[in-house]
Amino acid sequence: MAETATTRRSRITPEREAELYEAVLDLLREVGYDSLTMDAVATRTRSSKATLYRQWGGKAELVARAIRHHKPVDPSAIDTGSLRGDFQAMTHRQDDCQMEQDSALMRVLGTAAHTNPELLTALREWLIEPEMAEMRRVVQRAVDRGEVRADNPAIDYVLHMIIGAFVARTLIDEEPPTQAFVASYIDAVVIPALSA
Amino acid sequence: MAETATTRRSRITPEREAELYEAVLDLLREVGYDSLTMDAVATRTRSSKATLYRQWGGKAELVARAIRHHKPVDPSAIDTGSLRGDFQAMTHRQDDCQMEQDSALMRVLGTAAHTNPELLTALREWLIEPEMAEMRRVVQRAVDRGEVRADNPAIDYVLHMIIGAFVARTLIDEEPPTQAFVASYIDAVVIPALSA
Repeated sequence: MAETATTRRSRITPEREAELYEAVLDLLREVGYDSLTMDAVATRTRSSKATLYRQWGGKAELVARAIRHHKPVDPSAIDTGSLRGDFQAMTHRQDDCQMEQDSALMRVLGTAAHTNPELLTALREWLIEPEMAEMRRVVQRAVDRGEVRADNPAIDYVLHMIIGAFVARTLIDEEPPTQAFVASYIDAVVIPALSA
Repeated sequence: MAETATTRRSRITPEREAELYEAVLDLLREVGYDSLTMDAVATRTRSSKATLYRQWGGKAELVARAIRHHKPVDPSAIDTGSLRGDFQAMTHRQDDCQMEQDSALMRVLGTAAHTNPELLTALREWLIEPEMAEMRRVVQRAVDRGEVRADNPAIDYVLHMIIGAFVARTLIDEEPPTQAFVASYIDAVVIPALSA
């Protein structure tokens, strides 16, 4: 599941794959998910539709993996020795500009996912599950260190808390999420709930 | 702001107002916000469009107030004497069926609000601000009783935490929100963060 398209079928280079994902994200920003067609992706990237379908199966997986490509989840990269340190390190993987772009894309896709079951499935496989797995590893290490009680019910709600921060920030506060905001929310909400 | 359309212009009865709001919500469920027209509301409710515009100003306010009408926020109704009691009482104002319907409507409107500034303004005035004001009263009473520290930074994030529960429940867990889920989330996340 974590392998790239190039390892699955060694037809395109990593550079070509990155270029293609970039074009998919540009199109997604321009026209949204529902109006994005494989024809447009093929034209923009000078690929054949057959290649796109062979390599990615369809629009949903192509889009989910294009976003995943820009949002690397590397389980071994973060291990600061404390729960707070790990969460703050995750926050600092994206600068404010990337965070805002990412949040805007996720809003577009979150919306589209309500009416596109195959998109929801692809988002789960390529974005939600890897993020949840990473959160679980971070929290498990905190449990192992004795920072978090193994039976703390907030362990099941880490992603709920964090998604709330992003959604409410844009909808209620009408401001883009920033590193400073997310860091403050983690200190005010996520760490206290997990430390209870 | 809290007055009803009938007190603003005494042209329609409360029964007629309730009937009209019901029709607006039915239409909203059937066609979504963007395809909902004042013509359709006028036809469905056998009203004149002039009356609708005179009474509600426009589609955004009509829709926001239709939802508000089904989601009463009565500041004096809840005061159990404890933070947990007040939150649990708020959770129990809607049964699971109402909660699911409400959550589905808010998802439709949250999406539409991203591209309709006048809808966002109406949602803020008729739904978000009253909910935030009620949360602030509940939390302020807890501060006055000494249950919550006045400088606890989680006070600013109560609505963020709760919105996260609803959004993640439908998108990640793929299950409707229920009283039991919301109650468990409040105990696991909201109360510990506010009690830190």
